[in-house]
Amino acid sequence: MLLRGRPRALGAGALLLLLIGFFLFGGYPEYGLRRATVLDGGPPAGLNHSACAPQPPLPPKCELLHVAIVCAGHNSSREAVTLVKSLLFYRKNPLHLHLVTDAVARNILETLFRTWMVPAVVVSFYDAEKLKPLISWIPNKHYSGLYGLMKLVLPGVLPPSLAQAIILDTDVTFASDIAELWAFFAHFSDKQVIGLVENQSNWYLGNIWKNHRPWPALGRGFNTGVILLRLDRLRQAGWEQMWKRTAKRELLALPATSLADQDIFNAVIKEHPDLVQPLPCVWNVQLSEHTLAERCYLEAADLKVIHWNSPKKLRVKNKHAAFFRNLYLTFLGYDGKLLRRDLIGCPSQLPPGAEQLQQALAQLDEEDPCFEFRRQQLTVHRVHITFLPHQPLPPHPHDVTLVAQLSMDRLQMLEALCRHWPGPMSLALYLTDAEAQQFLRFVEASPVLSARQNVAYHVVYREGAFYPVNQLRNVALAQALTPYVFLSDIDFLPAYSLYDYLRVSIEQLGLGGGRKTALVVPAFETLHYRFSFPSSKAELLALLDAGSLYTFRYHEWPRGHAPTDYARWREAQKPYQVQWAADYEPYVVVARDCPRYDSRFVGFGWNKVAHIVELDAQGYEFLVLPEAFAIHLPHAPSLDISRFRSSFTYRDCLQTLKEEFHQDLSRRYGAAALKYLTALRQPQGPA
Amino acid sequence: MLLRGRPRALGAGALLLLLIGFFLFGGYPEYGLRRATVLDGGPPAGLNHSACAPQPPLPPKCELLHVAIVCAGHNSSREAVTLVKSLLFYRKNPLHLHLVTDAVARNILETLFRTWMVPAVVVSFYDAEKLKPLISWIPNKHYSGLYGLMKLVLPGVLPPSLAQAIILDTDVTFASDIAELWAFFAHFSDKQVIGLVENQSNWYLGNIWKNHRPWPALGRGFNTGVILLRLDRLRQAGWEQMWKRTAKRELLALPATSLADQDIFNAVIKEHPDLVQPLPCVWNVQLSEHTLAERCYLEAADLKVIHWNSPKKLRVKNKHAAFFRNLYLTFLGYDGKLLRRDLIGCPSQLPPGAEQLQQALAQLDEEDPCFEFRRQQLTVHRVHITFLPHQPLPPHPHDVTLVAQLSMDRLQMLEALCRHWPGPMSLALYLTDAEAQQFLRFVEASPVLSARQNVAYHVVYREGAFYPVNQLRNVALAQALTPYVFLSDIDFLPAYSLYDYLRVSIEQLGLGGGRKTALVVPAFETLHYRFSFPSSKAELLALLDAGSLYTFRYHEWPRGHAPTDYARWREAQKPYQVQWAADYEPYVVVARDCPRYDSRFVGFGWNKVAHIVELDAQGYEFLVLPEAFAIHLPHAPSLDISRFRSSFTYRDCLQTLKEEFHQDLSRRYGAAALKYLTALRQPQGPA
Repeated sequence: MLLRGRPRALGAGALLLLLIGFFLFGGYPEYGLRRATVLDGGPPAGLNHSACAPQPPLPPKCELLHVAIVCAGHNSSREAVTLVKSLLFYRKNPLHLHLVTDAVARNILETLFRTWMVPAVVVSFYDAEKLKPLISWIPNKHYSGLYGLMKLVLPGVLPPSLAQAIILDTDVTFASDIAELWAFFAHFSDKQVIGLVENQSNWYLGNIWKNHRPWPALGRGFNTGVILLRLDRLRQAGWEQMWKRTAKRELLALPATSLADQDIFNAVIKEHPDLVQPLPCVWNVQLSEHTLAERCYLEAADLKVIHWNSPKKLRVKNKHAAFFRNLYLTFLGYDGKLLRRDLIGCPSQLPPGAEQLQQALAQLDEEDPCFEFRRQQLTVHRVHITFLPHQPLPPHPHDVTLVAQLSMDRLQMLEALCRHWPGPMSLALYLTDAEAQQFLRFVEASPVLSARQNVAYHVVYREGAFYPVNQLRNVALAQALTPYVFLSDIDFLPAYSLYDYLRVSIEQLGLGGGRKTALVVPAFETLHYRFSFPSSKAELLALLDAGSLYTFRYHEWPRGHAPTDYARWREAQKPYQVQWAADYEPYVVVARDCPRYDSRFVGFGWNKVAHIVELDAQGYEFLVLPEAFAIHLPHAPSLDISRFRSSFTYRDCLQTLKEEFHQDLSRRYGAAALKYLTALRQPQGPA
Repeated sequence: MLLRGRPRALGAGALLLLLIGFFLFGGYPEYGLRRATVLDGGPPAGLNHSACAPQPPLPPKCELLHVAIVCAGHNSSREAVTLVKSLLFYRKNPLHLHLVTDAVARNILETLFRTWMVPAVVVSFYDAEKLKPLISWIPNKHYSGLYGLMKLVLPGVLPPSLAQAIILDTDVTFASDIAELWAFFAHFSDKQVIGLVENQSNWYLGNIWKNHRPWPALGRGFNTGVILLRLDRLRQAGWEQMWKRTAKRELLALPATSLADQDIFNAVIKEHPDLVQPLPCVWNVQLSEHTLAERCYLEAADLKVIHWNSPKKLRVKNKHAAFFRNLYLTFLGYDGKLLRRDLIGCPSQLPPGAEQLQQALAQLDEEDPCFEFRRQQLTVHRVHITFLPHQPLPPHPHDVTLVAQLSMDRLQMLEALCRHWPGPMSLALYLTDAEAQQFLRFVEASPVLSARQNVAYHVVYREGAFYPVNQLRNVALAQALTPYVFLSDIDFLPAYSLYDYLRVSIEQLGLGGGRKTALVVPAFETLHYRFSFPSSKAELLALLDAGSLYTFRYHEWPRGHAPTDYARWREAQKPYQVQWAADYEPYVVVARDCPRYDSRFVGFGWNKVAHIVELDAQGYEFLVLPEAFAIHLPHAPSLDISRFRSSFTYRDCLQTLKEEFHQDLSRRYGAAALKYLTALRQPQGPA
């Protein structure tokens, strides 16, 4: 869906005023652009004619602006999100983001934008893999790898109808409205095709160290972190032949590009200086090492785009480093849901699904005592899958992923869980944007967690009053990559042997091939805070007999696990089948294509029970594994369980939701679902 | 310290440009101000001459802008902070805040600004109590009470040298640079003294309901949430007499003011329409009920100041309510420390203490393995004392305040603690700005917590890598209002009787009057997560014998409490004295003027031990109370303790800090401190 801008003529008065200002005051207009377009007293040779132009008028209101970003891998995807947040914070125009991505970044960003639902933002993806052959012949030493070079081929990749676009590196942060930058297109002469900011280091002067041989450039050359491209003219001018010719010629004498695309852009510009429109340096304040950026801006109002182009990133030293860092941190921790806002005064441009969502929300009755439950159920949380690098092994036919969800207060469980479960995990984390950064630092500081490649962390951003437990489970479940999943909870530690044992059991039992089976992992609990984990079933039984362990929820809710039949499990040598009974909520291993959790259950209560009912209704058999076990560790009560215990409304609403769930069951499974309703209406004494 | 702005002449070119624009295009200039200055097609009678004036030029760079705010009580103080954050986010000029406060708000805001240390912000306080007699004769029905009316007397209250100021209600949020608003002063005619935005409701039209008799006003009248005051001219024109005369005359016919100062401002303006400079309505977008604000703005760029002047506040309905709410939420959750930034291009204006702090930080050696510890110790955290309403009882000579600190992961302890300790508490909470809002909702949702008037919550904002445990304790300790304090930890539940017992013991033992005594409350722990709290010492001893309870840290660190002599405590009928020994860290009750905690100890380790050493060095006697006890509940290990256990550097640094602490002790207490050093060097076997 490509949105079209609706250009609106600027008032004639405004235009005239601007022209008068331009002619009267030439290079020194009243605002916006200082004389500091270039770093030294005078502009570099050949660049003097437009360096001091006035700030051009803003593009017409509601005009669609196009932005292209090359993004590959987990870390760049995180960076890109922070860039996009800063863009959205200041923008007042509809945006079309053109994202050139590898498979990882596409997966992440597609999910993110689908769930972010920002009005007046359209996103298109382009496959970076397909572009590799176009540039892989260029030897390159820059850390951006091949991806940096892809900026060269954008005129051929972006839609032919697209006349102009702004190209951004993922490590820039906006401090102003991108429409102000877009406005410089109006200022290009007929020959100009590329808008760039001068480099703010002496790299291209070739005097940084001995034997430093940079690529040719005009003076300090230009930085390609922020580029304005007239795509139409580049295509007409045969850009592809132009840069290839230049690159090939230079590569006869130089071994490789050092700064990827930037070297080639500069070499072309050196040859054809009339192609470039130099932009005011505030549009790409470069915080590289030995940066000269301080010469560029006179005051905070001048700063438009900050470019973290040092390998040290935020730790770079600069007189105003704190100022820049605070700007970056503002968007790093900014609650992305606050950017889901319509553009005031432009035609409403809702993303897919947003209109139905708004209608559904509008139909909710605010007086309904369960209003908050229903709203939580409808909430579409922003989701950032594989927030951290993740390199799963190729899938194995009997492999199992542990699936669980958590929030900040359970982070301490992760290390123990990693020690107990060497296999793949898919974990949904319910966090604010700021907490996601704390989580990132937590993992980086933990040798145990940083060493793991097969744990995928999916951040689901917080929104609403209740913990959306089943939505979280569904996110983690959907991201599991193995044929089987162990649907666990974060407070359980599996037996050390469980991962191996499950894979063997799956193979031996001949699961798969249409057989619907749920393998039950019997659940125990310790009320003791310090606790030595049993290394075998025999040890576990001894602890059980000694009263150090209990079967899970033995004291408050035995019905939840009674059908597992712990007495039989004690003696069992091989898997045995058990029957569903009301309120059964075992921890199970199932094929990945199992039913999803019912998202109407939020907060505490009935969230797992409903899923087990669904499995039973779909004809899953429950097989208890004789050597499998997991143990629940004690923790402080969650805020949701406290609410459940203290609130009548909470309990009443849960009852209402249960009834609605059963009505839905009847609708879907007909008479077969009757047994669940009957079971529900039986008095719930101890099992 | 009153900062002086350094007006700088605007470039003549800029000025000329502006004038040309003004004369050529009259009321329809190019930018900033739309024709929507007023709500209807035509401006109200008498107001038409300047309603469509162009956006005036910005004030000179680095000019000091003056803002006055009336603020009283805990809730308004929280509101004021959000307003100030939005101001600071967009401002580029130095600011002088003139805060008219009651004692509560002064206490809160003085601490906040002292610890916030924002460069180029000066804060002056004015005592609202002294102003009450000036306006208490006016009958008033508005929810702002007398404080709203105080805006009338500001010309006489603010310094006589102050020529102009912007007056703001605490419920406004800025969406733009306040300098743009200040710029309208340049636009006042010689007679104009008050800049105001028209009301965006029909209140003053008198047709809202039957028998509604509003005060006189021009048309819809003006809203006083945002006021530009020419203080100099108001003083010259005899403002005080003017408004009093009008008010008294109107009060002959009207029973009271309904909208406080606003009624009187409007009545004066109705009489003297030439006093007012109408401001574009975007500078006070009013979200009252039945608001007409939507007629005011055409696009987001127009919005300058949002005014939440509905009693429903954020729940108000409006076409763009989500947009406004997101703006407000942005600043509500904004990390205030990011606003601690110098104004680029203005002379550095550091707040008191900031320069020494910067020097101390600059002297730290980044290569020092303990760098992060030392930096944490130097960090000045923003502190918002009594974040929630707090109404302590008048102090009683033997009263005791429970002092503790916590972060989000211990919120669940608060209800239990309130049940165990009916007396006053002073709690420091280590939170982000966003978490502080979550905490607020948590308390509001808890009947137990909302009912308590004598629990003071002090928010210390998060900054740095370590939990600043001793800084937190010092904040809570400094805010205790009773003569005695019980220095506890958040994971301990005191015996139900402890509060009463302590007060009786303090009285019976004749504490106070120079006797330096620390009453020891013996500490126990349960490793069981579910646990029935003993109602007496006898019950506690039975649980101890049954192995359900232990003396605190019996398993890992018996030295910490061994000197309490639990064997003797079993039998004790009256208080007994014990001697300090190495690593002793009992929970004690002391007079409020006890030594502060040593803030060099951050994170886990030695933070309480050092305080007890200090008590001993100052000659405190330790008296164990025979009927007192507190029990530690189990919880997941804190992130800091995990770090301590896993990191050599952490333990090495703690050792270094301990040695430095002992050197300081020797310096202060001479030979008497030798015993602590000797004790430290003894091998640390089990006690």
